[in-house]
Amino acid sequence: MTNDIPRSGIDRRALLSTLALLPALSASLLPAHVSAQGATPTAALPSWNDGPAKQAILDFVRDTTERESSKFVSSEERVATFDQDGTLWVEQPIYSQVVYCLDRVPAVVEKQPELKNVQPFKTVLSGNREAIGKLSLHDLETILVATLTGMSVQEFNAEATKWITAAKDPRWKRPYTDLIYQPMLEVMQYLRSNGFKTYIVTGGGQDFVRIYSQRVYEIPPEQVVGSASGTKFGYGKDGKPFLTKEPKLFLNNDKAGKPEGIHLMIGRRPYAAFGNSDGDRQMLEYTGAGDGARLKMLVMHDDAKREYAYGPAQGLPPSKVGTFTQALYDEAIKKNWTVISMKNDWKRIFAFERAI
Amino acid sequence: MTNDIPRSGIDRRALLSTLALLPALSASLLPAHVSAQGATPTAALPSWNDGPAKQAILDFVRDTTERESSKFVSSEERVATFDQDGTLWVEQPIYSQVVYCLDRVPAVVEKQPELKNVQPFKTVLSGNREAIGKLSLHDLETILVATLTGMSVQEFNAEATKWITAAKDPRWKRPYTDLIYQPMLEVMQYLRSNGFKTYIVTGGGQDFVRIYSQRVYEIPPEQVVGSASGTKFGYGKDGKPFLTKEPKLFLNNDKAGKPEGIHLMIGRRPYAAFGNSDGDRQMLEYTGAGDGARLKMLVMHDDAKREYAYGPAQGLPPSKVGTFTQALYDEAIKKNWTVISMKNDWKRIFAFERAI
Repeated sequence: MTNDIPRSGIDRRALLSTLALLPALSASLLPAHVSAQGATPTAALPSWNDGPAKQAILDFVRDTTERESSKFVSSEERVATFDQDGTLWVEQPIYSQVVYCLDRVPAVVEKQPELKNVQPFKTVLSGNREAIGKLSLHDLETILVATLTGMSVQEFNAEATKWITAAKDPRWKRPYTDLIYQPMLEVMQYLRSNGFKTYIVTGGGQDFVRIYSQRVYEIPPEQVVGSASGTKFGYGKDGKPFLTKEPKLFLNNDKAGKPEGIHLMIGRRPYAAFGNSDGDRQMLEYTGAGDGARLKMLVMHDDAKREYAYGPAQGLPPSKVGTFTQALYDEAIKKNWTVISMKNDWKRIFAFERAI
Repeated sequence: MTNDIPRSGIDRRALLSTLALLPALSASLLPAHVSAQGATPTAALPSWNDGPAKQAILDFVRDTTERESSKFVSSEERVATFDQDGTLWVEQPIYSQVVYCLDRVPAVVEKQPELKNVQPFKTVLSGNREAIGKLSLHDLETILVATLTGMSVQEFNAEATKWITAAKDPRWKRPYTDLIYQPMLEVMQYLRSNGFKTYIVTGGGQDFVRIYSQRVYEIPPEQVVGSASGTKFGYGKDGKPFLTKEPKLFLNNDKAGKPEGIHLMIGRRPYAAFGNSDGDRQMLEYTGAGDGARLKMLVMHDDAKREYAYGPAQGLPPSKVGTFTQALYDEAIKKNWTVISMKNDWKRIFAFERAI
């Protein structure tokens, strides 16, 4: 019912503080729907137009992988990190994980009927899109906690897997996992085929992303770093141990939390980092502070026709989701980071789309 | 000066609460000193005597890796976790990381001379082994916080690397990293050669272990899960970003904290888990609660001649470091976990030793 919530007043930063919270999977899911592209430079990055962005990627890989290069990096040190929302897939008009949480409200209320007439659950149950769009941050946090915690890791995994398989984005009428940017998949594949270990480093929920990361990105759950709730080890009535998702944010993997999370979970400084918003600034700075060749890229959403245009870098319209400020743009130019123009650098945006 | 501290009144549990706290490395270190053994079952595990422990390992690998096996596990799900202290290397008479912290006290006092006459620093500086051995838990925590936090990740890395390369165990007069159990290295290599990803899951400091994990275990830093301090992202005077180790325990990776840490950092349930004390109980229970073939093994220190004998499982003398209680032993027998007798199952304990 809430798949087509209008663009709402949701603030990325604070949302992420609660977006923590979901279990991992013990079984692999569906087969990958994207197969690896050729690894030779000529075949690499077929959905990219020739230009400075594509060239920056090719140069970086050449510099770090050719034995005779002064910037050669040993294969075990080749780490590349990718933000997810707005960098790897569509984040407008609202983060998919928030849609998941709103969609879960009826099931939560069924288990706890006393919530039926309590706000903000009442508003969500009403299906009134305008009212839902106006929910306060505090209301949303209440919903996130109620829908992402308090269950076992296994229960969460089962529910979220069911949802991500069935739910559809209202604009494209396709599963959210179809809305992955094909050019970014090609960068990941190209880096992997050159010995890089690719990680997702997201402000979104680590457990949520782990559910589909192998299938859609070919990235295993252990290479997903995200915001995370604490879990609590305990025993069921049958004596079997299990983990419960606690209503407590453990890792807030946004802004300064990204390099901190990278240190905790990976323990190496990335050689390449990709983002699209102010939430990725510190990750790119941290990456850039290392020696040798370091690739820092920002995806700029400047293609209203094929995707969305928002910014407000370079005068793009402001947005409550994914804030690429002019200050970030200025820092990128000053520090020689590469800004990717979706409009100019990408032949096509989605796998289901023909290249232009 | 403190390399030969007498067996002291240090309690594992509480120590681990503070043992958190050290930076990762961005560069690979020395070449591995242990090369892989043959991967075929006949050549595998050469330092193991034939017996139920060796057989349990061989059976587990056969069950999980042979295509026609009903318990076959796909390669991406093959995860094996190893406790470190007392499971992979010697933990008596005192954890090596605590020795590191005591050894660091003079350098800390040099930077903060006001600590010179303050306890517990004064006692450590005195070099009086008996007095150092009697330091309270609170004193030790003070020392751990003072020596493991408050510096940048890079500074810590440099100091700890210097120490681990030079410091020697008083009994064997060898670097601590020589005191790795050769049979356990062989298990790790055997599992890896059969497609398992091997992780260290230690109550010790994640950043500390990451410094030598690649060199001595062939385990990269990103596959070390340990107790961890928080880090704080900030900028130096030159504007360069860096991470500071905060005096705050972030992940207490012991007992129930082990399965919780495994979920956070790996997101998969292990198929094999190895421990040696009550601190590993929950990790083995969590492993055992999964479907199919799951290997759960406990190292029992019953060889006073070649290493140490302590327990108090099966009447071994009690010890303040590494408590393998009779209750854990009973649970192992009841749940069909495998107890490894160092005395009977291992031909040799260290690589530098001749096999018996």
